[in-house]
Amino acid sequence: MQFTSEQRLDDGVLERGFTLGEIPGILWTPGSASAPAPLILIGHPGGLHKMYPRLVARARHSAADGFAAATIELPGSGDRPRSAAAEQARADLRRALEAGEPVDEEIVDRLVLPLVEKAVPEWQAALDALLSLPEIGGPVGYSGGVIAIGIRLAAVEPRISAAVLFAGSFVPRALFEEARQVTIPLHVLLQWDDEGNDRQSALDLFDAFGSKEKTLHANMGGHTGVPQFAGDAAARFFTRHLS
Amino acid sequence: MQFTSEQRLDDGVLERGFTLGEIPGILWTPGSASAPAPLILIGHPGGLHKMYPRLVARARHSAADGFAAATIELPGSGDRPRSAAAEQARADLRRALEAGEPVDEEIVDRLVLPLVEKAVPEWQAALDALLSLPEIGGPVGYSGGVIAIGIRLAAVEPRISAAVLFAGSFVPRALFEEARQVTIPLHVLLQWDDEGNDRQSALDLFDAFGSKEKTLHANMGGHTGVPQFAGDAAARFFTRHLS
Repeated sequence: MQFTSEQRLDDGVLERGFTLGEIPGILWTPGSASAPAPLILIGHPGGLHKMYPRLVARARHSAADGFAAATIELPGSGDRPRSAAAEQARADLRRALEAGEPVDEEIVDRLVLPLVEKAVPEWQAALDALLSLPEIGGPVGYSGGVIAIGIRLAAVEPRISAAVLFAGSFVPRALFEEARQVTIPLHVLLQWDDEGNDRQSALDLFDAFGSKEKTLHANMGGHTGVPQFAGDAAARFFTRHLS
Repeated sequence: MQFTSEQRLDDGVLERGFTLGEIPGILWTPGSASAPAPLILIGHPGGLHKMYPRLVARARHSAADGFAAATIELPGSGDRPRSAAAEQARADLRRALEAGEPVDEEIVDRLVLPLVEKAVPEWQAALDALLSLPEIGGPVGYSGGVIAIGIRLAAVEPRISAAVLFAGSFVPRALFEEARQVTIPLHVLLQWDDEGNDRQSALDLFDAFGSKEKTLHANMGGHTGVPQFAGDAAARFFTRHLS
């Protein structure tokens, strides 16, 4: 892990760019941490540069609650090399959505399963590196989409203690089985009228999770319209479980 | 409205029993209110005496947030005269549930519609009396079940500004139409594994509400197992909308 940039934000949060091998990432640490901070891994749909305004807003919120936050670029997004197969699957998905057709499970599998296979070990490697820093302790939370990545991480990575998952992207059926293996506390956000999301599938997925403590927060508004109070509630979930 | 009893609880909350004609009720006001307090009407399934421990806990929570809270007995519950038709409908419902049969809409209509017809004007009369007290101002929230009563009140009573509704009892189809007329902010609690509740019906009802701001909080546990953090979230909803 190599730090490549460093800046102090106006609220005192320290933002550092890093690379982990070929993978770029960003780490935010609270300005006034006296002890090693718990860590929130911030998931996103890919494209660190494009997503930066929303990522930094979430990281500042986390830092205000005493948490470090970190994210890495997804395979095939941002400046990382494209995969021809993933680009083809994405084009097929877009074509189906534009035609108003139901999206074939086979397309979702082609798009999401290889992404999960590749991304999850990268997030785990990032976790190794981040937890070796003296300013970061534990426990660790995962927050965000791609929800399929969150499911796999929650199922296989014992260092993740709690997760906020955004039900807003396609989930291969195979991941529903993995969801049954998840036992950590979960806080699932669902935008009820999300135009790009299958609501019934999101409800089925919530039902499938094996966790004894799982909460679904459904709100109005489209994909990016999560209300402020819903973000606050997700933050309180982490404060309950990571502090 | 006649006050019939008065006691100061250990946290300073003033609890007063009252009657409104033949209807018994309870009013709780914060110990240290300097200005007229907003009011939360506390709904329940009937039986003030039996429900008292849970009602007073909710009222204390509300008082700690600066709100007055009040409740009245439901028609046909507690010490109020029984209705033969309602008793028959209740027996028919119990028989269907014990037999594991789907509950006929006709039974739900017979049980719930007359209750809503009778109870809603009573809650409105209580509101008239309560709002005439100098220690109570506005705005007013409704919290609880019977959810059908909450729907009708939210639809027809303009003095109610926000409602927390418990999805945990049967809702006649006719009330789904009224739900579309509701426009106030709503916070709906659903116990995901509530043995006495039809989850799909609760989700359909949430979908039906006309409110632009509506939030569904689904949690694990049975009918009475609403987690502490879910109660806290409902309280914050009222603080956002009634303060």
